[in-house]
Amino acid sequence: MDCVFCKIINGEIPSVKVYENDHILAFLDINPMEKGHVLVIPKQHWPSLPEVPVDDSSDVAMAEELYYMVRVIAKACIRSFADGANILQCNGEAAGQTVFHLHFHVIPRCKDSSHPLSFDSGHAHYDSDEERAQYAEKLRTAIAKILAEEKVL
Amino acid sequence: MDCVFCKIINGEIPSVKVYENDHILAFLDINPMEKGHVLVIPKQHWPSLPEVPVDDSSDVAMAEELYYMVRVIAKACIRSFADGANILQCNGEAAGQTVFHLHFHVIPRCKDSSHPLSFDSGHAHYDSDEERAQYAEKLRTAIAKILAEEKVL
Repeated sequence: MDCVFCKIINGEIPSVKVYENDHILAFLDINPMEKGHVLVIPKQHWPSLPEVPVDDSSDVAMAEELYYMVRVIAKACIRSFADGANILQCNGEAAGQTVFHLHFHVIPRCKDSSHPLSFDSGHAHYDSDEERAQYAEKLRTAIAKILAEEKVL
Repeated sequence: MDCVFCKIINGEIPSVKVYENDHILAFLDINPMEKGHVLVIPKQHWPSLPEVPVDDSSDVAMAEELYYMVRVIAKACIRSFADGANILQCNGEAAGQTVFHLHFHVIPRCKDSSHPLSFDSGHAHYDSDEERAQYAEKLRTAIAKILAEEKVL
């Protein structure tokens, strides 16, 4: 399949990962709305949220794990460097979906931001590769702590 | 508690409801980003997504029911009048949260829209009370059909 996110999952396209397990991958958006902007995706290729199947218990469990990880990553942003976080998810071209593999945006927001809330891709830029790596590392550390505390996965 | 959404839940403040059960309420946003914009909330007062508890199985089940209903309502928008739908959820003032009772926005999007994608409240206006009522009725019908088909709740 010619899906960019499936290629990221199988390693054909590189990504800066902040979390991965058998069912879920979370990585930094390459065109971030804010620094630390994460995409959370299921490894299963579902085009959009309405198309997530509900008649198979393993699909249902995987979807619940995905929603749980979206929550954990929002919490990790707020724990480590942000004052708040938006969750954004787009279904269909009319809603701005460009990659047709289900994904949740987790967008960290800071009080002292110099700009108004934006939902435009590429609105933010990392100052350097080091800064990008630092955001990823802060997220990884916070995610690991939350998962250890909550003992859900 | 002085929470606007708790008052909507207990009927002190009126709302145009599109779905309600023991745990969840879904109603039309009074300052819609698009016509048919729905807010989906848990009846339990949780301030934001990171604050949803995970150590009590009834809370976990309620949260999963909430995420499922967000998906159903996005599907209902697309089935009945929209070409796509955005899910938006705001955590913290820095992320634009104004009511501190967890809520998911489901924002229908149409291909033939005369304006670009907007995440501004009050961006759209119903032409009349009748039109608002028609959107609510379309959503109620589509939600009921999807729930009957999927047999999850």
